[in-house]
Amino acid sequence: MCQLLAMNCNVPTDIVFSFTGFAMRGGHTDTHHDGWGIAFFEGAGVRHFVDHQAAIASPIAELIKRYPIKSTNVIAHIRKATQGQVALENCHPFVRELWGQYWVFAHNGDLKEFHPLLNGAFRPVGTTDSERAFCYILQQLRARFGEQRPPLAELRSVLSGLAHEIATHGTFNMLLSSGGELFAHCSTHLFYLVRQHPFDTAKLSDEDVSVDFSQVTTPDDRVAIIVTQPLTTNERWTAFQPGELKLFIDGCLR
Amino acid sequence: MCQLLAMNCNVPTDIVFSFTGFAMRGGHTDTHHDGWGIAFFEGAGVRHFVDHQAAIASPIAELIKRYPIKSTNVIAHIRKATQGQVALENCHPFVRELWGQYWVFAHNGDLKEFHPLLNGAFRPVGTTDSERAFCYILQQLRARFGEQRPPLAELRSVLSGLAHEIATHGTFNMLLSSGGELFAHCSTHLFYLVRQHPFDTAKLSDEDVSVDFSQVTTPDDRVAIIVTQPLTTNERWTAFQPGELKLFIDGCLR
Repeated sequence: MCQLLAMNCNVPTDIVFSFTGFAMRGGHTDTHHDGWGIAFFEGAGVRHFVDHQAAIASPIAELIKRYPIKSTNVIAHIRKATQGQVALENCHPFVRELWGQYWVFAHNGDLKEFHPLLNGAFRPVGTTDSERAFCYILQQLRARFGEQRPPLAELRSVLSGLAHEIATHGTFNMLLSSGGELFAHCSTHLFYLVRQHPFDTAKLSDEDVSVDFSQVTTPDDRVAIIVTQPLTTNERWTAFQPGELKLFIDGCLR
Repeated sequence: MCQLLAMNCNVPTDIVFSFTGFAMRGGHTDTHHDGWGIAFFEGAGVRHFVDHQAAIASPIAELIKRYPIKSTNVIAHIRKATQGQVALENCHPFVRELWGQYWVFAHNGDLKEFHPLLNGAFRPVGTTDSERAFCYILQQLRARFGEQRPPLAELRSVLSGLAHEIATHGTFNMLLSSGGELFAHCSTHLFYLVRQHPFDTAKLSDEDVSVDFSQVTTPDDRVAIIVTQPLTTNERWTAFQPGELKLFIDGCLR
């Protein structure tokens, strides 16, 4: 199993605080040491960092913790290999282009006997069940909607059906974004919280670090954090229901 | 115009020396300050770093100069915007998947009235002529060869024809790799050299730095460097002929 982290906000925000606690799980407070990755949307572009080293030993993870890259949509992943060897091409998140937009995907879980028919439009480069699922989702979206991105409600409905179908093969907690929105599907465990005015101090559970968000925000800021296990000890995290696909836009649950 | 740099070798090699000189052109010894990027193949995977900040001011470029990422195929680019605004999605190199492999592409030049018919299989995310050319090349390769990657000789021949066709619209110096080989097309200026035994000391032209490669190599190492303008003052660089598409494998010109 792996760990997932996502952030969706209404103004570009850095993820330094949350990533600092999350990265500790990559070989320190937890055993997820088979690589890690993070993708930040910035306009239509994506900054994509992957490393097959443990997050606690990675110079690139160190950079992310120090360099406050601001984004409204971030997806991060720490890997504990279940399928596919430890290699760069098997590190999440994965990135592909569909409808002239980059799509970013990360998965927690293990899919058994999941070998969908892939027509070649999107093919896995690595050997994980996760990348197979991502390619299958994009292929089905293009097959269903052609070359035109559909309205969000239709997209959500089709994605929900696809997630449900894939989850019949095993655990399918996943995060998916094309930059303007964040989809999160829970099959076993996923939690979220929305930080907004009045902001308070949050304390990481994985490291002795606190941040008083009232000092680094404006009253209009809104930040949703989605994660496989709560990151802080003094905030109220809401558990997803198994089978739920939630949609976040501008830091709001829709 | 922009600057290109590629490395193709027979054993994983770091690009710290060449990138140090190259990055100086991103705002210091030259005026290419509208972003930069670099992609390293590692097995089937790719580490892809892009930044719309000038290379000399970028914390990520600083990391690349300090952290010796080893790779047999690297493509780097420093941008001076001619078409498309300064934005992350317009930074080269671009990455797409075809035939279950990542393809990395960077371009120097300016294409006039280049608006090929794109069928949607590969669509630009940004607004550059370069990403349009990349999407067109991949679309034409899939149209020509279907879902099976062809033998290298056939691929080379078709790529040569495509590069020639695109170059009728303007300057098309370009680098393209799927990890195992490096294609380089010259329409105006591109230079290469192969470093091999006996290795000597090389001195950067853009910064007061020298490296004695005999101290950091084995006699079997072979490294080809391809660049828009020679990087060192005391090595013999060979100019490409206009219209040439060269292929490098394992540090050898084929």
